[in-house]
Amino acid sequence: MTQTRTPTDQAWTARILTLFPEMFPGPLGQSLAGKALEKGIWRLETMQIRDFATDKHRTVDDTPFGGGAGMVMRPDVVDAALAAATGDGLGTKGNGPAIYLTPRGRLLKQDLVQELAAGPGVVLLCGRYEGLDERVIEARGLLEVSLGDFVLSGGEPAALALIDACVRLLPGVMGAEATLDEESFDAGLLEYPHYTRPAEWKDKKVPEVLISGHHEKIQSWRQAQSEETTKLRRPDLWDAYLKRGAAGDR
Amino acid sequence: MTQTRTPTDQAWTARILTLFPEMFPGPLGQSLAGKALEKGIWRLETMQIRDFATDKHRTVDDTPFGGGAGMVMRPDVVDAALAAATGDGLGTKGNGPAIYLTPRGRLLKQDLVQELAAGPGVVLLCGRYEGLDERVIEARGLLEVSLGDFVLSGGEPAALALIDACVRLLPGVMGAEATLDEESFDAGLLEYPHYTRPAEWKDKKVPEVLISGHHEKIQSWRQAQSEETTKLRRPDLWDAYLKRGAAGDR
Repeated sequence: MTQTRTPTDQAWTARILTLFPEMFPGPLGQSLAGKALEKGIWRLETMQIRDFATDKHRTVDDTPFGGGAGMVMRPDVVDAALAAATGDGLGTKGNGPAIYLTPRGRLLKQDLVQELAAGPGVVLLCGRYEGLDERVIEARGLLEVSLGDFVLSGGEPAALALIDACVRLLPGVMGAEATLDEESFDAGLLEYPHYTRPAEWKDKKVPEVLISGHHEKIQSWRQAQSEETTKLRRPDLWDAYLKRGAAGDR
Repeated sequence: MTQTRTPTDQAWTARILTLFPEMFPGPLGQSLAGKALEKGIWRLETMQIRDFATDKHRTVDDTPFGGGAGMVMRPDVVDAALAAATGDGLGTKGNGPAIYLTPRGRLLKQDLVQELAAGPGVVLLCGRYEGLDERVIEARGLLEVSLGDFVLSGGEPAALALIDACVRLLPGVMGAEATLDEESFDAGLLEYPHYTRPAEWKDKKVPEVLISGHHEKIQSWRQAQSEETTKLRRPDLWDAYLKRGAAGDR
């Protein structure tokens, strides 16, 4: 099949394999991501996994070998869906990695978000039920990614969060790109606290240093606050920060 | 104002303060969560933060004291919205904790999800822009919760994930409640791999033990797989698991 490339074909593309395509774009159709979607800065494609079932009941799952509760998604059906999603000739500029969203995966962090946003896009496989047959994960070399140590009803809410995080990094999405410069996790620390008007609210004043106009003092106050908050709330991040410092690459 | 309590008033309630109420229910209107919402097992209420602005432009944000990119949500406006959301007389059984979704918060984990699902519900404040004035976080004693170490365009995708995780634990939501018995993170380990039909697919066979019918062997194979996967992929979880074992409470 011959396809004519249009500028939109070059856009960052999220291709989603799901049993619930109607969940998309959902929140991604609004606000920043929604406007960027309308402008063609990114593209959203959903594929119904059930369309790749071959029996007349369009079965996508079956009981687990070895017993246990719940159902498991069949390797053959999911494989056929992935073949269609990652195959050539679909008119997009590459595909980006094929990601399976699962609590067994590597934790999603900002460095992976940045890597994905810098590429051509993502293929996201959203599981439902107990999970996916392990053989198709191996055969397709899926990158397993987890939103965190909690259990969702399926991969869809995780896909929405992952795409949201990527899309806001695409050029032209954020109004002031400057706000990307200095933000959470870039330095490996939690952000300092924010204050805005009114300067006095319910007898609570904004910290004096912030209205001093003394740029250096403000910077060092914010750095100290970031460090203090990280130390207190996230000893894991704090330890990693100290280690990177010792290695001289911060 | 007098309100008549109906059975639905006792349902688990997610009350969301947002600048984008149209993002809800979004994916939560479908599948398991959607059916449970229709049945009245849980309730969703959105409140537009902008409705609590007092100037004629309905301003909710302002520039940060101390300079920097982005805008900060005003403490007075957010406080008024929280007062309305957590005040009495709104016809719901309690409110559950008021949570501010922010990358500076405590990481969402399954134990917090379980705690929230067991309570009357949650009040979720979704930030946009650079963040929220620190004074209102302190004044209202907000519980700060983070989905993970990545940055979203706002709290809304995080709210959708948090609610999804809670709702699936509510009685009557999952078809087979048994699937909740033995699932990710309950033991502090990642799940073992799953397999289903066909028993042989693309020359890849299901591990023999799983078709042995020998329940004990299957259990110990699965336990070993869980341990191996956790050790390999999540040394942090593995260390915590070993420590709990040493303390004798596993």
